[in-house]
Amino acid sequence: MTDRVLGVLGGMGPLASAQFMLRLTLLTPAARDQDHIPAVLWSDPRVPDRGAARLGTGPSPLPWLMRGINGLRAAGCGTIAIPCNTAHGWFEPMVRDAGVPILHIVDAAATDLRRIGIAGGTIGLMGTAATLAMKLYQDRLNAQGWDIIEPEPQQMERLVTPAIASVKANRVAEAYLPLAEVVNSLASRGALAVVLGCTEIPLGIQAGPADGLRVPVVDTIDALARAAIAWARPGTVG
Amino acid sequence: MTDRVLGVLGGMGPLASAQFMLRLTLLTPAARDQDHIPAVLWSDPRVPDRGAARLGTGPSPLPWLMRGINGLRAAGCGTIAIPCNTAHGWFEPMVRDAGVPILHIVDAAATDLRRIGIAGGTIGLMGTAATLAMKLYQDRLNAQGWDIIEPEPQQMERLVTPAIASVKANRVAEAYLPLAEVVNSLASRGALAVVLGCTEIPLGIQAGPADGLRVPVVDTIDALARAAIAWARPGTVG
Repeated sequence: MTDRVLGVLGGMGPLASAQFMLRLTLLTPAARDQDHIPAVLWSDPRVPDRGAARLGTGPSPLPWLMRGINGLRAAGCGTIAIPCNTAHGWFEPMVRDAGVPILHIVDAAATDLRRIGIAGGTIGLMGTAATLAMKLYQDRLNAQGWDIIEPEPQQMERLVTPAIASVKANRVAEAYLPLAEVVNSLASRGALAVVLGCTEIPLGIQAGPADGLRVPVVDTIDALARAAIAWARPGTVG
Repeated sequence: MTDRVLGVLGGMGPLASAQFMLRLTLLTPAARDQDHIPAVLWSDPRVPDRGAARLGTGPSPLPWLMRGINGLRAAGCGTIAIPCNTAHGWFEPMVRDAGVPILHIVDAAATDLRRIGIAGGTIGLMGTAATLAMKLYQDRLNAQGWDIIEPEPQQMERLVTPAIASVKANRVAEAYLPLAEVVNSLASRGALAVVLGCTEIPLGIQAGPADGLRVPVVDTIDALARAAIAWARPGTVG
């Protein structure tokens, strides 16, 4: 039994944060309710669009993010996980004022790449246009020894961006084919694995057959859940 | 866009409350993140076992339940949903001190029975031994015109109770066959539908083929999610 209460800053999108709670539960070694990790999920889908803010066409989400963090801290949470990649564009200002540690989703993805045996070489990266533009993954992963390739701009426009919007609108099954096409295109360009660097992308990928993908993918929802379990239960996950 | 923030008192078990968040999201009419319902999930799996407390063999969960309710109220929640049937055994003391309304899962199940066209007649009821013993469903549903039949005591011991424990231990697939056997046994005794009056049971039932069930089932996770959406968005669900 643990007294470490996990805070989850979610709602971005709400399906991804619900899936995070599900995966957090399923990945936790447990034999009964009382073995699971106490957690508070602050699911606020009203947070202004992170992509629009990053591209300069919408208001900053930071005040909304801080409101959630303060709510989670008031609820007694000892660390915070944010199952939204794009929101990590505000990681530094959040960490500065949070008063509690925040797990970084890119570090969680790097740990997961090593877990599946890909400790270096070329990997593909998929995410929102904003996540790719802000170099959220590229800088941190380059520094740890991976080379990164990204979808072509027209693949972003035609395939990735519409598929992410489909998931946010609950049309998950439609997202599989366009996303799988991009995974396989990155594989044909030499990627040993593809990091699904937007929490909506794994939901679309899971809506179709896994054998339609030519390389392994890193699900950043699962990666972040594993990092959260490692925090709550040191020593239980590798 | 709504300003009604839903409070979810969960963790009993944690898989059921994560599933509740997922179904809340998927059942909400939405085209983008900002159309979804703001919610705070207080997932505290440390709440003492509700069944043991009801049977007099364990401590009361009420102080833990009230702690969660107070936390949700402090977070700004305007009403509370509790995706755990057995916890509704403490509904009256919770409501008395909550300071905000609490949706009743049995009323949500009754609404769902009518939604699928079963407005009266005999229905089956499955749940924990504690839920059945405290007559949580029977009294409220009898009063609204349904006759209730329950699994035989040896079916509870051999099939239902172990299947619920399997789900709480993340062994969801094992739960399907014993639960489906009980659904079909109730059908053969005349049930027009079966209410799955424990939030772990639908998770086990969904782990196998729907065409293995001879009558419709009411998923109390979905029923409670629909009631929550009706509160947050009056007029959007039937």
